[in-house]
Amino acid sequence: MTTLLVKGGKVIGPAGAIDADVLVDGERIVALSLPGSITTADTIVDATGKYVIPGGVDAHTHMELPFGGTFASDTFETGTRAAAWGGTTTIVDFAVQRTGERVQDGLAAWHAKADGECHVDYAFHQILGGVDEDALKAMDQLVAEEGITSFKLFMAYPGVFYSDDGQILRAMQRARENGAMIMMHAENGPAIDVLVAQALARGETDPIHHGITRPAALEAEATSRAIYLAEVARDTPLYIVHLSASGALARVAEARDNGRNVFAETCPQYLYLTLEDQLGAPGFEGAKWVCSTPLRSKHESHGRDLWRGLRTNDLSVVSTDHCPFCFKDQKELGVGDFSKIPNGIGGVEHRVDLLYQGVVDGQLSLERWVETIATTPARMFGLYPRKGVIAPGSDADIVVYDPNGRTRISVETHHMNMDHSAFEGYEIAGKVETVISRGTVLLEDGVYRGRKGHGQYLRRGLSSYLV
Amino acid sequence: MTTLLVKGGKVIGPAGAIDADVLVDGERIVALSLPGSITTADTIVDATGKYVIPGGVDAHTHMELPFGGTFASDTFETGTRAAAWGGTTTIVDFAVQRTGERVQDGLAAWHAKADGECHVDYAFHQILGGVDEDALKAMDQLVAEEGITSFKLFMAYPGVFYSDDGQILRAMQRARENGAMIMMHAENGPAIDVLVAQALARGETDPIHHGITRPAALEAEATSRAIYLAEVARDTPLYIVHLSASGALARVAEARDNGRNVFAETCPQYLYLTLEDQLGAPGFEGAKWVCSTPLRSKHESHGRDLWRGLRTNDLSVVSTDHCPFCFKDQKELGVGDFSKIPNGIGGVEHRVDLLYQGVVDGQLSLERWVETIATTPARMFGLYPRKGVIAPGSDADIVVYDPNGRTRISVETHHMNMDHSAFEGYEIAGKVETVISRGTVLLEDGVYRGRKGHGQYLRRGLSSYLV
Amino acid sequence: MTTLLVKGGKVIGPAGAIDADVLVDGERIVALSLPGSITTADTIVDATGKYVIPGGVDAHTHMELPFGGTFASDTFETGTRAAAWGGTTTIVDFAVQRTGERVQDGLAAWHAKADGECHVDYAFHQILGGVDEDALKAMDQLVAEEGITSFKLFMAYPGVFYSDDGQILRAMQRARENGAMIMMHAENGPAIDVLVAQALARGETDPIHHGITRPAALEAEATSRAIYLAEVARDTPLYIVHLSASGALARVAEARDNGRNVFAETCPQYLYLTLEDQLGAPGFEGAKWVCSTPLRSKHESHGRDLWRGLRTNDLSVVSTDHCPFCFKDQKELGVGDFSKIPNGIGGVEHRVDLLYQGVVDGQLSLERWVETIATTPARMFGLYPRKGVIAPGSDADIVVYDPNGRTRISVETHHMNMDHSAFEGYEIAGKVETVISRGTVLLEDGVYRGRKGHGQYLRRGLSSYLV
Amino acid sequence: MTTLLVKGGKVIGPAGAIDADVLVDGERIVALSLPGSITTADTIVDATGKYVIPGGVDAHTHMELPFGGTFASDTFETGTRAAAWGGTTTIVDFAVQRTGERVQDGLAAWHAKADGECHVDYAFHQILGGVDEDALKAMDQLVAEEGITSFKLFMAYPGVFYSDDGQILRAMQRARENGAMIMMHAENGPAIDVLVAQALARGETDPIHHGITRPAALEAEATSRAIYLAEVARDTPLYIVHLSASGALARVAEARDNGRNVFAETCPQYLYLTLEDQLGAPGFEGAKWVCSTPLRSKHESHGRDLWRGLRTNDLSVVSTDHCPFCFKDQKELGVGDFSKIPNGIGGVEHRVDLLYQGVVDGQLSLERWVETIATTPARMFGLYPRKGVIAPGSDADIVVYDPNGRTRISVETHHMNMDHSAFEGYEIAGKVETVISRGTVLLEDGVYRGRKGHGQYLRRGLSSYLV
Repeated sequence: MTTLLVKGGKVIGPAGAIDADVLVDGERIVALSLPGSITTADTIVDATGKYVIPGGVDAHTHMELPFGGTFASDTFETGTRAAAWGGTTTIVDFAVQRTGERVQDGLAAWHAKADGECHVDYAFHQILGGVDEDALKAMDQLVAEEGITSFKLFMAYPGVFYSDDGQILRAMQRARENGAMIMMHAENGPAIDVLVAQALARGETDPIHHGITRPAALEAEATSRAIYLAEVARDTPLYIVHLSASGALARVAEARDNGRNVFAETCPQYLYLTLEDQLGAPGFEGAKWVCSTPLRSKHESHGRDLWRGLRTNDLSVVSTDHCPFCFKDQKELGVGDFSKIPNGIGGVEHRVDLLYQGVVDGQLSLERWVETIATTPARMFGLYPRKGVIAPGSDADIVVYDPNGRTRISVETHHMNMDHSAFEGYEIAGKVETVISRGTVLLEDGVYRGRKGHGQYLRRGLSSYLV
Repeated sequence: MTTLLVKGGKVIGPAGAIDADVLVDGERIVALSLPGSITTADTIVDATGKYVIPGGVDAHTHMELPFGGTFASDTFETGTRAAAWGGTTTIVDFAVQRTGERVQDGLAAWHAKADGECHVDYAFHQILGGVDEDALKAMDQLVAEEGITSFKLFMAYPGVFYSDDGQILRAMQRARENGAMIMMHAENGPAIDVLVAQALARGETDPIHHGITRPAALEAEATSRAIYLAEVARDTPLYIVHLSASGALARVAEARDNGRNVFAETCPQYLYLTLEDQLGAPGFEGAKWVCSTPLRSKHESHGRDLWRGLRTNDLSVVSTDHCPFCFKDQKELGVGDFSKIPNGIGGVEHRVDLLYQGVVDGQLSLERWVETIATTPARMFGLYPRKGVIAPGSDADIVVYDPNGRTRISVETHHMNMDHSAFEGYEIAGKVETVISRGTVLLEDGVYRGRKGHGQYLRRGLSSYLV
Repeated sequence: MTTLLVKGGKVIGPAGAIDADVLVDGERIVALSLPGSITTADTIVDATGKYVIPGGVDAHTHMELPFGGTFASDTFETGTRAAAWGGTTTIVDFAVQRTGERVQDGLAAWHAKADGECHVDYAFHQILGGVDEDALKAMDQLVAEEGITSFKLFMAYPGVFYSDDGQILRAMQRARENGAMIMMHAENGPAIDVLVAQALARGETDPIHHGITRPAALEAEATSRAIYLAEVARDTPLYIVHLSASGALARVAEARDNGRNVFAETCPQYLYLTLEDQLGAPGFEGAKWVCSTPLRSKHESHGRDLWRGLRTNDLSVVSTDHCPFCFKDQKELGVGDFSKIPNGIGGVEHRVDLLYQGVVDGQLSLERWVETIATTPARMFGLYPRKGVIAPGSDADIVVYDPNGRTRISVETHHMNMDHSAFEGYEIAGKVETVISRGTVLLEDGVYRGRKGHGQYLRRGLSSYLV
Repeated sequence: MTTLLVKGGKVIGPAGAIDADVLVDGERIVALSLPGSITTADTIVDATGKYVIPGGVDAHTHMELPFGGTFASDTFETGTRAAAWGGTTTIVDFAVQRTGERVQDGLAAWHAKADGECHVDYAFHQILGGVDEDALKAMDQLVAEEGITSFKLFMAYPGVFYSDDGQILRAMQRARENGAMIMMHAENGPAIDVLVAQALARGETDPIHHGITRPAALEAEATSRAIYLAEVARDTPLYIVHLSASGALARVAEARDNGRNVFAETCPQYLYLTLEDQLGAPGFEGAKWVCSTPLRSKHESHGRDLWRGLRTNDLSVVSTDHCPFCFKDQKELGVGDFSKIPNGIGGVEHRVDLLYQGVVDGQLSLERWVETIATTPARMFGLYPRKGVIAPGSDADIVVYDPNGRTRISVETHHMNMDHSAFEGYEIAGKVETVISRGTVLLEDGVYRGRKGHGQYLRRGLSSYLV
């Protein structure tokens, strides 16, 4: 096989930085060694003065997700290509079981969408659209045979993805037995539906009312409830997705202080964007930032608390919840009725950079940056040590990151299939310089060399991130 | 009118004790005065060496409640007579709207049951069996016209009394507008139903499984949820009924520390009885103590924490949740299937005594005893200062209590219509000596002089117990 | 004896309001009765449309206190006269044991200052300036023979009043035995002294630096420490004086949630005034508001949290910490060195009004107003039911309060011996209309009829406010 | 240089395990590589079926410490030899400044004791026995020139090591400037001294009274105080040594939830031993376990909470506080007076094994084991990545650990200079098989090949473990 040497860089792992060269043979890392100790390789990547980090793992994407009568605008092809541009070399997308559909059929449809299309490696979580005996059996089968070890339930969206508390409890009990992780969209859907109907009845139809009708207290409530239900299911591990609010974070922190296997992710949008400044943009503009959980008020302490949660490990992971919709024709479905705006923000391309900005701002250490964007998601979802770490035997998913570079985010330059950017005009520190996936250089010197079909499906093991 | 003088006693109020004589004219107290300053009256009750306390207010009873195919065994006649024997001169019972029924019709039926039957004064809370537009309008009407200012919802019992979170939110919003109090049975019914079905499927049919399938975490969860929903309804006042578990108490305490109008009651059974010792009694015996929320494990700290909560005012009220069922033919409906045992314990007769035992045991101060059994329930439910206090203008509901007396509780001596006692054989400190209701002596020298029809319906005002 | 009737008013107690007439015979209340039921008396005070409340009890004053080379500017004569004007009919002042002095001698000196000088009744707490064997014995004697049942210690002021933790523990242990209450000035003096010296060395000499060098964290710290020491002393009751900061309040609330006998008072200055607006006034003006604990930053949540604490009863009492110094010659001692400014604010005259403003602002209920300014301080310090309540047998200390009146606070109109007012120009709701002390009308129709020597020394019993 | 290859093992790091061979050249690790990829080396250590972990870092030892008129019984020679036997290849000992002595002189004395004597590498923290201007300047110099970046203060031991709160604050402020870490012995010494004197006066002289007179509340108190003082010193990093009690842990956890740089270590004795079972052993036997902070009551939840704290990272490090005293002649100094028993337990040899037992018991993950005994102490105290990790460039401090081995602890087999063992008779899982220090094999096949003088002094950098 051909060899590749990443030399002269500073290799960052969750415990710190070391000066080391990284030798790749074929698709895998075969050695870390003292700088300069290896001198020959088929390809040499000079990382002098740069950080060498494991390729990013984005544990929450929704390529081609059907939602509200349309589909998320990134296919697996365009979405994974954008991920690669942004230094993310693994995504975990959500296969969907629609209500009434067999779980396995939903999964098969997802494989069909992704197969042969991806630029980077991919895995699946499974959304359960209806917990019944068949679905519970399917959970066992997916864990045992399909490499799918995490299942997402919704406390929101009654009539669509919603599971009631009895269903949630049953799925958690099953996960306790088969070792899977339960992922939770934690918002109180029935209560939100009341608020939405009342707002619309009052003629409050602008995008900002999407946020106002999903108050932070209803995220905290559902988070609290999920934690209690997991306790009743004999401490089933629980992972709260897209946590956006201080009150929900407080419940997660409390559970973790008590030694419970409760984890949460947040997303860059909740760290940087707000209800007033984005969702409340004039006219229908705010529709760009309609996502659930929603952006939170800048008059409260959410953003500051989320950064602190990342430092304290009460938030373990940063994902994107990448779910892009174009403004034209898609977001516009909700003109005159915010409840018809497709929910989602696209960001798979910018997570690594946006979090590095946190390092520059003093919010995170370098180690914690790597941990939250790569190491922990890999460990959390059974991909470690294949992904998430620079070590012998691991897949050669490597990003050379230039701490002195600059990245400008714009619809004009991004690679996602969106006609706008949630972070338009952001000019931030750091730059993804070289991206390597399983030993193949995808991006180098600003030139993209990747191709669809390179990315492979990853069968995942059980979470290794449990206390 | 005729006058009555209670002389020589120590009058106990929530702030302390004073030596005073109490003069009654007709149905009302007309004066408190220095001991010995009034010397004549038509009737003189000598309270020398005794406590003079306001008649007890039991804010939670269920006379003749239909449940599980039978009816609570005390009628308003027998139940209020037992109350009088035990020093309780006001009850607040729950009128029931059955699902599908008009609220007003449910109320009318309750009036029909009680009218002319009661030995002591009575009022009604209204149970809402289905929150819809009609029910919301009925709430307004009951507050404005019927003197019913509190509405109970159930997070338990799906298919029977259960309201979903959207319904709860709407009722809370309406209460926020009309000033009513929302009372909540806080247990997660859908999750409990899963646990019950699983237990029965495993052949676990004994009464103790009633408690095991209603874990404390599901009471804490629902309590937490109700508090969050009340927050979303712009801080509607909320009253948690029959709080039994430490975890639920912690949520109430947290809300109260934050200045929220959240209140809770507990009941004597949770202070004295346990899952293991009572529900777990051999054979089917435990059925006597099947109630919901259930008795809790003695291996945890529930009882100790509840006493502390009464001291710290995180628990504001002690009610009985009096809901008696005979063992024979009623509790026995659940032989072989604990889920068919009618839920309820009878105790309206013993609350005053059982809490006075707490004074003797050093758990409560004298003031706090009176406050939790009489003053606070009266204030909480819009009966103050008519009830709950010894003061000029108040109804002459007065109990002379002998701190040196002894009370033995037994089916052989009690006056409730039950064929067993939840506290059989308890021999406790203190004794209800004389009971006066609106100026009429009901009990004196161990002789009962009350009669049905003496008790009147009380139209209640709004709660005066809000921060 | 002569009789006096307060008729037609609304009598406010901690549990609510009743319509009642109050009959006084000589120095005591002899009856409460239905409005209109008594028609004759030697004197009739018409309270129609007014509140009738127990005379205020200010549990924290410092008349003639020696401090920093000068003396608090109110004598017992002027200070108690001002108290009477403001509706306060009882003060509890602090007798001082100076370091090296016998406790009894310090007490005797205080009696000498007060005897025959007071316009309203007075009692003493005892400051211990040095805890040793003699002082511990003196504690027992004061409790048993002198009616002094509370002892104040200082964690601040090293070299002056400061007690180290060993001394504090010993005094607490002794209090545990003799039933006394330990009162604590909770600020970390040794750490503050470091900050003060550093500030002065940097040339930061203005009054605002008094506040900056006494950070809220050092009040929270000392409060926490006092609570732990009281725990070690087998849960000795503990009362934190002049609590000013959110962090300290949180520690008190936590202890109270745990059922501990921990209490705290705050003062009007902490509810209304701030570090920036008052202490930070231009030039040396801020010296007027130099007191310890200091005013806190308006950029934090202290004021809001303190009001909430009053509602939740985590703060039990409002006192004034009345310790007036004139600006001229007294406050001016600290020109050029804030550490030499005598510490203290005068306010004994305005507490009742300033807290009634809280009722109007929706911060407190009427009941809670009366409870925090009269009933609870009386109960807390062994004066109940003689003081703090309108009841037969109680001293006839009665204030008729006009809820529709207005009070303007100014040096031009106040009666304290101060050349400025901490609340200059405040125009607030409510007005003290009539003030009665032990049956004698001191203030009526804006005319002051009191005289020095009317006020009597009160021997106090043990606290009745313990859980 | 000579090469050494550790082959076939499972390399454990804080993020997980990988299969890799480790190549050493001279004193350093030069490469990690795929198993089998390197086949030749001067020495080959076969780790097949074994764990390969970084050598343990014990951040808290007291070799030859003078205490209570005697000296800790291990010299640097015997103590570091025992450490090596137990898989610990780095110790950080405490140089002592005695009161009145120059800091630099204390340090020089410590160098004199250790120089040329050690079997494994060593570094120093500096104990400050008196914080004054000279000591503050010395702190700067030690950080800048001596590689000493952490300073220990005592809130206990008045008259010996004790610093008052002003001194502590000043040292913290200085640490804030020079980057050092403040380590704190957090017990309230002045209060403890009162309890000790009272116990002795009551004739309570047995060893168990050492523990009873140092109640857990006084550890929680001092921990709380240190955290507040660090806050006042603008969030100086703070490290609590030998945390033993639930209440203290709760304060650390609270600070960490708030994002504060507060860290704590515990020790094996607090995880396994108790007040009743060890300190309360019959007669004077308990003296063996006299250490401060003391062993805690088994009737409380301390041990369980500490294990949980290690899982949640509220406890970051496990050290030994190795401070051995022989029973004969040393512990016996306290016969008849527990306060004269030298304080200390020896355990430097057993930390790695005792914590591995926690892995077997399900208390810790493998990763967390390595993190708490090696990686985190190295990062915390400025030794990373030289120590605490298996990585190219790191010192070749490597332990081959046999998970299937067994270790029996006994005075008959241990290598510490003690005439008893605190863990006598413990038979636990796991076994230190091979120990390598800077490329030199110290222990192999049960044969010790180390020698004094091999161990070198380590100049430390600043902590890398800050949020």
